[in-house]
Amino acid sequence: MGHDLPQSPLAPKGGFPDLPVIGGVRFASHAAGVRYSGRVDVMLAELAPGTVVAGTFTRSKTRSAPVLDCQAKLGGPADDGAAILVNAGNSNAFTGHKGVEAVEAITGAVADEMNVPKARVFTSSTGVIGEPLPFERVTAAITTLKGQLDETGIAGAARAIMTTDTFPKGAGATVTIGGREVRIAGIAKGSGMIAPDMATMLVYIFTDASIGFDALQPMVARLTDGSFNAITVDSDTSTSDTLLVAATGSSGVNVTGETAFEEALERVMLDLAHQVVRDGEGATKFVTVEVTGAADHADAKRCAMAIANSPLVKTAIAGEDPNWGRVVMAVGKSGAEADRDRLSIWFGDVQVAENGLRHPDYSEEAAAAHMKRDEVRIRADLGLGGGSFTAWTCDLTAGYIAINADYRS
Amino acid sequence: MGHDLPQSPLAPKGGFPDLPVIGGVRFASHAAGVRYSGRVDVMLAELAPGTVVAGTFTRSKTRSAPVLDCQAKLGGPADDGAAILVNAGNSNAFTGHKGVEAVEAITGAVADEMNVPKARVFTSSTGVIGEPLPFERVTAAITTLKGQLDETGIAGAARAIMTTDTFPKGAGATVTIGGREVRIAGIAKGSGMIAPDMATMLVYIFTDASIGFDALQPMVARLTDGSFNAITVDSDTSTSDTLLVAATGSSGVNVTGETAFEEALERVMLDLAHQVVRDGEGATKFVTVEVTGAADHADAKRCAMAIANSPLVKTAIAGEDPNWGRVVMAVGKSGAEADRDRLSIWFGDVQVAENGLRHPDYSEEAAAAHMKRDEVRIRADLGLGGGSFTAWTCDLTAGYIAINADYRS
Repeated sequence: MGHDLPQSPLAPKGGFPDLPVIGGVRFASHAAGVRYSGRVDVMLAELAPGTVVAGTFTRSKTRSAPVLDCQAKLGGPADDGAAILVNAGNSNAFTGHKGVEAVEAITGAVADEMNVPKARVFTSSTGVIGEPLPFERVTAAITTLKGQLDETGIAGAARAIMTTDTFPKGAGATVTIGGREVRIAGIAKGSGMIAPDMATMLVYIFTDASIGFDALQPMVARLTDGSFNAITVDSDTSTSDTLLVAATGSSGVNVTGETAFEEALERVMLDLAHQVVRDGEGATKFVTVEVTGAADHADAKRCAMAIANSPLVKTAIAGEDPNWGRVVMAVGKSGAEADRDRLSIWFGDVQVAENGLRHPDYSEEAAAAHMKRDEVRIRADLGLGGGSFTAWTCDLTAGYIAINADYRS
Repeated sequence: MGHDLPQSPLAPKGGFPDLPVIGGVRFASHAAGVRYSGRVDVMLAELAPGTVVAGTFTRSKTRSAPVLDCQAKLGGPADDGAAILVNAGNSNAFTGHKGVEAVEAITGAVADEMNVPKARVFTSSTGVIGEPLPFERVTAAITTLKGQLDETGIAGAARAIMTTDTFPKGAGATVTIGGREVRIAGIAKGSGMIAPDMATMLVYIFTDASIGFDALQPMVARLTDGSFNAITVDSDTSTSDTLLVAATGSSGVNVTGETAFEEALERVMLDLAHQVVRDGEGATKFVTVEVTGAADHADAKRCAMAIANSPLVKTAIAGEDPNWGRVVMAVGKSGAEADRDRLSIWFGDVQVAENGLRHPDYSEEAAAAHMKRDEVRIRADLGLGGGSFTAWTCDLTAGYIAINADYRS
């Protein structure tokens, strides 16, 4: 941790975006010295009374104490306001009863200072695993954080939650519903995992839309499937992954059942998910894997993730090698229903294989030219049914090995 | 293919072992020029009348034509003898109807030349994918191969089936049952996969034991679970993996129900499986992953394979880093039932974590010393039940990336 890695070559041009201000949310960030020195490492978001909070979490069986606490608090009463406090530097994972105590201490201190119920204080931690979280450094910062709360502080919050990220990640949208504007702004951190500690994906999205928990929660779960659960850097799953969506309602626009809102939220989630892939450790290529013609959606996802997770596919991409045999291999091992003789494969627009055989017009030169791009597309059509799924990943390079094997803090 | 990679540092000392001669089996190998020039690339094994052939195969949904043909022929009549012909250099995978025609041509030609039924001729192919197999080069070699058949030719056969292996792999055993000797000798190839083509694991084991197909086949399937299905180099699965066990009966010793025989066969299979891991691409560490205390056997296997396949665990091992957080992560993502607060972890004999917390006596120095060894052991006890499983893998190094990304033939 704390290595000064160069910014990913796949980082969005133009730096952190201008995000819409979300009524009902104020942000603060501070250098609390949890583990790093000389950089902001805690962020606080204050959520106005009436804010609905939905979320999705890691499916790991070894979830951290903060994740379990957040999960239990979803769907709580919105009337009294809420708060989110996140620290970087220590993940408070695999810390047993001490981890639970740290969560209690932090959420209790935030509740007292902000005058909100403890049941409405959400906390996340990211950083080193297995070391007790020095929670006093966090709680000692709360008064300072409260004094700095500001509607425009989201960029600082995005920086405060970074660990080994090489750039802060933000995305926003404004959508007009019934002639009135609804705003969405989100931040994320994540770049795979880094020696010697486990990193994590954390995502916080804020909107001034008005929507009930019963409508927001299934929407967030549905959109997570095609965004944050459709990306992979190295197939490894953090114990701390957390996504929270807070809807303050301050726009006065009820978006329940509004497709335009769901589409805007989807765009923001996809944008943030893609930024996580673009900051994948050692990444030099942003890879889109599209599976069509699968027997059903589940099979399409299984197949797309098998291709996106295959070390052999990912090293071939790093080598700019249109190695379609490895795509066949990944389809075959995925467990999805597949018929070798109906499979077709494309790299970009170049068709490599058709009905289980190399395409008669296949041009290795054209496929190799596509592989030289920063953004590579692989498509596999299974020729069986209507199931489709798109996954995103990056290539697997010597940089990934160097970051994860050679560095040692 | 055909890169002169240096021999793996994990290769067994002393080179190819002296293997017992198996009555009823004769071997020949030849340079047929399938793809390589100047090296043996086809092998023929002649099996005496009465030989029972059992086998296990890749579970890939895109299995190659030779694999489908072998599977269909298991359990055929033993009276008329049998033959196995293997070529390296071209895997005859993803070759559509041409692949089926090549299998027909090769098995037909061997049947004619050797005077055995075509239904008893087994063939395997390993090497480049998606290119039609030039089967005439193989069939043209059969007369020459027949003329060279020799009971002691197994070492040549082990060399003929190599592709990117850095050493030929053999293992044998002699076991005394009822005062009489039964012999087992096996060969294998496999080292992961290599650019630009898919490699494969092929295993052929011969014994002079007398045993019926109905007893041998379930024994082979059972032993495969704990040996060849318990190893992983890179989590990728070939379309061509094949294991055949041929029992000639020439010892006259019926081994049905004899534990000593099953144990000897298990030792040979484990030895060969470990040699495949030792030849894993870029490997510098041989890693044993032992999971105990799982809810059941299936969970233990799931968990052990998740640890053994985790890029983060494997890069940590490459970096000689006792990174137990990554082991926790892999347990959590495996899908196996797990309770964070009952989990204990060891590196070698050094206990790192106990009941979900870092062990109070944990010595980072002692754990780091273990990680410096060529052979690393990781043990995770889930504290839940009696399920246990041991898996074997190698580390993930820059050498793996170099072999799979940077080389391009």
